[in-house]
Amino acid sequence: MKKIVSFVLTTAAVTLSVPAAAQFAKPEDAVKYRKSAMFLMQQNFGRVGAMASGKVPFDAKIAAESAAVAEFMSKLPWPAYIAGTDKGDTRAKPEIWKEPAKFKDYADKMQAEMSKLAAAAKAGNLDAIKTAVTATGGACQNCHDDFRKD
Amino acid sequence: MKKIVSFVLTTAAVTLSVPAAAQFAKPEDAVKYRKSAMFLMQQNFGRVGAMASGKVPFDAKIAAESAAVAEFMSKLPWPAYIAGTDKGDTRAKPEIWKEPAKFKDYADKMQAEMSKLAAAAKAGNLDAIKTAVTATGGACQNCHDDFRKD
Repeated sequence: MKKIVSFVLTTAAVTLSVPAAAQFAKPEDAVKYRKSAMFLMQQNFGRVGAMASGKVPFDAKIAAESAAVAEFMSKLPWPAYIAGTDKGDTRAKPEIWKEPAKFKDYADKMQAEMSKLAAAAKAGNLDAIKTAVTATGGACQNCHDDFRKD
Repeated sequence: MKKIVSFVLTTAAVTLSVPAAAQFAKPEDAVKYRKSAMFLMQQNFGRVGAMASGKVPFDAKIAAESAAVAEFMSKLPWPAYIAGTDKGDTRAKPEIWKEPAKFKDYADKMQAEMSKLAAAAKAGNLDAIKTAVTATGGACQNCHDDFRKD
């Protein structure tokens, strides 16, 4: 358990190769945990994305705060992909557990892009935000394409 | 919108008196947002609580990280209590919108207690963690008693 939970706040947070079930009372909690983090990430990323695309006016303060929350959330889901949780109320594909290195690579890349976005938003640079939103969105999509059911 | 979302990362984050709907595409998103943050908070607080009660062995690193996540989450739900979201998949009581000052007071107190817990956990002091877990749990319960349906 120590080994797992200690990864929660680190960037390289995918812990597919070690038994992580101990930190969740039941498998449904693990599913809900990662879905909750993903939803909060998506909502906050979406606010910045709406500014990047011009859908809503750019507000540097909101962008910085939203991107910071999205970055925090990007680190949380991974220890919750415990074995056997491709069932139930989830769109996680079994491939996550069949190709853990690829999944970890995608997850790491998304976190790295999200951190760049948070840095751009903190700096208040809209052009840099636009670039980072595109890169981050692509990193999300890559993983969803291969590891999430439609 | 600016006024609302800018509160996301501040401690005094209850914004019941201003129209916050703009930051959510639909009311269900606001409900899901606050429930997601509450769940992530509960899971992480629970890990520290289990150590405080002796259910699981004390691990200073896990306690500190879990308490830090719980503290972060404690700041997020409040802007999502937008008007009209006592309906649907929620246990939020209508009293939240009838007694906003009381609700804000409870929310503020919970955040303050959770911050004390995070500080105690960061310091690695199990006795201080125990005290803070009890105080934080009480602050959660006070609000649930009055503002959450069974």
